[in-house]
Amino acid sequence: MTRKPSGQRGPVDHERRDQIIAAAHEHFRLYGYKKTTVADLAKAIGLSTAYLYKFFESKKAIGEAICSLCHDTLLSDIQAIVKDNITPSEKLRKIFQSLAHNGAELFLHDRKMHDIVASAIEEKWHAAIAFDQELSSIIRNLLLEGRERGEFERKTPIDETCRAIVLSLQPIRHPALLEYNLETLDNDATMIANLVLRSLAP
Amino acid sequence: MTRKPSGQRGPVDHERRDQIIAAAHEHFRLYGYKKTTVADLAKAIGLSTAYLYKFFESKKAIGEAICSLCHDTLLSDIQAIVKDNITPSEKLRKIFQSLAHNGAELFLHDRKMHDIVASAIEEKWHAAIAFDQELSSIIRNLLLEGRERGEFERKTPIDETCRAIVLSLQPIRHPALLEYNLETLDNDATMIANLVLRSLAP
Repeated sequence: MTRKPSGQRGPVDHERRDQIIAAAHEHFRLYGYKKTTVADLAKAIGLSTAYLYKFFESKKAIGEAICSLCHDTLLSDIQAIVKDNITPSEKLRKIFQSLAHNGAELFLHDRKMHDIVASAIEEKWHAAIAFDQELSSIIRNLLLEGRERGEFERKTPIDETCRAIVLSLQPIRHPALLEYNLETLDNDATMIANLVLRSLAP
Repeated sequence: MTRKPSGQRGPVDHERRDQIIAAAHEHFRLYGYKKTTVADLAKAIGLSTAYLYKFFESKKAIGEAICSLCHDTLLSDIQAIVKDNITPSEKLRKIFQSLAHNGAELFLHDRKMHDIVASAIEEKWHAAIAFDQELSSIIRNLLLEGRERGEFERKTPIDETCRAIVLSLQPIRHPALLEYNLETLDNDATMIANLVLRSLAP
C-alpha cells in the first residue's frame, strides 16, 4: 500500500477521489489554480464542499494531487530514457532535453498547469520536493552506472556531482526561468548537457 | 562622451540628474518600485513631475538608472577579481562566489532593490541585458586567457562554453531562484563552479 499523498483523506483507492482530481484538473486548467476556491470547485464538480473535504483537506491538497500527476508524466518519460539501451552519457543528455521539452510544452500549451507547478515550487509543496528527490535519485543512479562502466570520473564525491547537475538543470526546467529562456531552450539544454558531460569525463 | 542610458534625456552630466537618481533610489528602497508613480517620486524629491520628465522619459528610465548603479557594484567586484594575480580557474571560482554573495546580500538587506533587479530581468530592461552582455564578455576573456595558458580545454567552440557557463550561473544569481536556493547558496556556488572547472579541464 502506498503512503497517502500530502493533505489527502479517506480511503486511498476511491473512484470519487479520481473523479474529483479529474474534474479539478479540468477546472484549474480552464480558470487557473490561484483564482479558484474549494467552493467554486465543489460547485463545478457537482458535489458539496463538505463531501470534497472528505477526500482533501484543502485546495492545496487537490493542487498537490494534480501536480503529482503532471510530475508522473515527466518522470515516466525520464524512466523510459533510463531503460533505453544507450550509454549513461546519452541518457543524461536525453534527460536534459526531455525536461526542457516537457517544460516548454506545458508553458506553451497548458499555461494553467504550468502555473500550478510554479506555485508548487514557489511554496515548496510536498509534490515539488518529492519530484526533486526522485530526479536527484535517478541522476545519482545514472552517475553510479557511468562510474562503474568507466565512462565518468570517480574522484568527485557523488553527492556533490549529483547536486551540481540537479542545479545545472534549473535554467532549463524551473518555471520562473523557462519563460525567460524559452527562445533558446532546446539549444541551451544541449549546451548545458555538453558542459555537464565534459565535467564527467574521467 | 558616453552613450546616454536608456530612456534618459537632457544633458548627460547634470547634477540634478544625480540628485534625482539618489532621491529615487532612497524612495524606491523605502516604498518599492512597483508601488511608486512618477508623481509620488516628484513630490518626495520636491520637484515638479514636468521637471523630472526633462531628465527621464518614464519611471522605468529611473529604475533603469538605479538598476545600472546596482550592476556597477557587482561588476566592479568582478573586475577586481579579474585584475587579481591568480589563475583564470581561481578567478572563475571567485566570480561565482561573488555573484552569489552579492545577490544574497541584496535579497537579505535591500529587498526593494532586489525587486527592482528582478523586474529588470523579468521585463528585459536594457540595464539587465547590458549586464548579461558585460558578464558574458568578462567570462569569455577569462576563458581565452585560460585557453592561452593551457589551463582550459580548447576543443569546444568558445561561444558554446561561454553561454553554458553564463547559464550555469543562473541558479545562484537569478533573483527568482536566489530566494529558493538561499539556504544552500554559498555551497551551491562552490559546487557549480567546481563542475564548470572540471568541464574546462584540458
